[in-house]
Amino acid sequence: MSVCVPRGFLAAGESAGIKRRKGALDLALIVSETPAAAAGCFTRNRAAAAPVIVSRSRVPSESMRGVVINSGCANALTGEKGHSDAEVMGAAAAAAIGAEEDQMLICSTGMIGTYLPMDDLRSAVERAATALGPSHEAAAQAILTTDTVPKTAVHRGDGWAVGAMAKGAGMISPHMATMIAAVTTDAQVAAAELQDALGAAVASTFNIISVDGDMSTNDSVVALANGASGVRPAADDLQDVLLSVCSSLARQIVADGEGAGKVIRVAIDGASEPEQAQAAARAVGSSLLVKTAVHGGDPNWGRIAAALGASGVRLDPAKLTISIGGVPLFQKGAPAGGRADAARRAMTEDLVEIVCELGQGDGSAEFWTCDLSEAYVRINAEYES
Amino acid sequence: MSVCVPRGFLAAGESAGIKRRKGALDLALIVSETPAAAAGCFTRNRAAAAPVIVSRSRVPSESMRGVVINSGCANALTGEKGHSDAEVMGAAAAAAIGAEEDQMLICSTGMIGTYLPMDDLRSAVERAATALGPSHEAAAQAILTTDTVPKTAVHRGDGWAVGAMAKGAGMISPHMATMIAAVTTDAQVAAAELQDALGAAVASTFNIISVDGDMSTNDSVVALANGASGVRPAADDLQDVLLSVCSSLARQIVADGEGAGKVIRVAIDGASEPEQAQAAARAVGSSLLVKTAVHGGDPNWGRIAAALGASGVRLDPAKLTISIGGVPLFQKGAPAGGRADAARRAMTEDLVEIVCELGQGDGSAEFWTCDLSEAYVRINAEYES
Repeated sequence: MSVCVPRGFLAAGESAGIKRRKGALDLALIVSETPAAAAGCFTRNRAAAAPVIVSRSRVPSESMRGVVINSGCANALTGEKGHSDAEVMGAAAAAAIGAEEDQMLICSTGMIGTYLPMDDLRSAVERAATALGPSHEAAAQAILTTDTVPKTAVHRGDGWAVGAMAKGAGMISPHMATMIAAVTTDAQVAAAELQDALGAAVASTFNIISVDGDMSTNDSVVALANGASGVRPAADDLQDVLLSVCSSLARQIVADGEGAGKVIRVAIDGASEPEQAQAAARAVGSSLLVKTAVHGGDPNWGRIAAALGASGVRLDPAKLTISIGGVPLFQKGAPAGGRADAARRAMTEDLVEIVCELGQGDGSAEFWTCDLSEAYVRINAEYES
Repeated sequence: MSVCVPRGFLAAGESAGIKRRKGALDLALIVSETPAAAAGCFTRNRAAAAPVIVSRSRVPSESMRGVVINSGCANALTGEKGHSDAEVMGAAAAAAIGAEEDQMLICSTGMIGTYLPMDDLRSAVERAATALGPSHEAAAQAILTTDTVPKTAVHRGDGWAVGAMAKGAGMISPHMATMIAAVTTDAQVAAAELQDALGAAVASTFNIISVDGDMSTNDSVVALANGASGVRPAADDLQDVLLSVCSSLARQIVADGEGAGKVIRVAIDGASEPEQAQAAARAVGSSLLVKTAVHGGDPNWGRIAAALGASGVRLDPAKLTISIGGVPLFQKGAPAGGRADAARRAMTEDLVEIVCELGQGDGSAEFWTCDLSEAYVRINAEYES
């Protein structure tokens, strides 16, 4: 269940021959039957890909018709030809569904520095337009790269609905990463309001997850609202629902991180201010030593303390408490002693919770990541350019 | 050849039973026969270990007698008992060589959050004092943790000399890491001058290397100058020699990084200012995707571009050139095309050179790191707390 749940949205997935495996789905088309309000949040990477630059210039908008997404080629760092290719890709999709050429958003994910096979892409776009239907499945499959499962989420409101799909896997870091998410809703929402709600949802979902600390050139989250339900939700309701849908997708991305076996939730309490808590949570969640310790099932709180200390946030070990799976291991200045077995058991769970109380104030934050395994290295050493 | 090359320095290594393997060397003593000027540079980690806090308070000094170093236990996050243990460790070493109790520097490396076995440590210190001699070998071995080889360097000046030893391996990140280095010289140098020269050398050597981006609680570089040569080198000469010795140790640390098979040198040219170049070099050298690509021997310049873009430095892809092993792969806005085979060959070398020309100004910087292998993950998932 996904982007086709809200009324008036259709989807399709096709093979454009971009991925090496013959017949692999690598082109997705998501279309609103009527013009939709559109919003988007994009990577802050200064080497942003061509489709990011084009799509970013088109939102917010009151009259977008859909989004065309390819995997297997990021169309990033491809110069003027790449920019033109992205525009042509959008125009081809728009023409195929009878829309104006700038009524389409464009997303790409995959290898950096390679060009899109434009002829094959154009025919795949035309086949996709013909194949548009009420099933999201081929589209959700077509946007994946090293993901092992599709990521989808749905929320049904009172007479209206939100559907979403995403891809993730690697290059996942705060401020998004090599992730793409498409959100559809049949709510009546003005583009500016949709943009605000999406921005807020992204800030506390996709922007507080990390797989490997690398920020990609292509991250994009786009939302389309076509008003087909006739319902105009309260701004708070829209905000809550987008948050819930994006939160679900973000956790699915972390759980399916390259080589990941466990999800790690880092919670910081008692920081001197929220920004300090965020920096501390990110530092712990980004530490390779913490992530490998979780992989090995070792409640090594010393690495957590070292990461906190290195983060630059205000810290006094004498006021610090560190718990894993609810078991305090370091308490106000000294090792808590004992109970390591209980913490070791907690580290065999699918979700490992690390809580640090800094004792400096009221600031709190959380951060989601996954363990680091040999498989991550293998996947990324073998991924060929 | 190492810390005993300068006149008037003796060393010894003993087993204090801290490391699990019975009889493993884990206590090193380096002593100057006469009071020496002393300098030190320490971790910026806010959870600094007890020995760091004690040693930091003792430099610069004109009358230090030596340094006592243990491996296997970091004596970090150990509260007041740990602080007292560090002072006792220093006092025991000082007493054993007939010095005042505050004439000794103290360094520890190993597990965070465990206490030193003080009785065994005291007897090992006494045995080490008895065993002091002109060979550095046992001492250089005793400071290692997951290192596979000792790291030493020597420079002979005109009538004076500098010797040094270090340990590294993991938790290696800018602003030092779980590394300890001891530098000796028989030059006549005042403590303040020694501190300045050491600080400058550390800034462009130990502070521009990374193995895993984790900054430890225990990093320390200490220098002792006993004047036994009777030679007072020019400030520039002293500076050059310390830089050369520290640079050699820093590269040895990177080459012996946990699981490392290759050394990576990242050079940034044409940044708008030196700080921007440093940030860019660090971003590329810290990217897991770049490090795994080097491990896999894949000239994936797209990951380098993505890391540059994510670093936040001023960047215009249209002015950017990226080369690997002297082969340009991305040139001013577009893939250079061809020659990927030459770059692939360059990536089979022990040293892989990545050069990025940003085209923004005159700022340049370099950064040294190593590839990321499955073995790094295995070593750190299995390292037990």
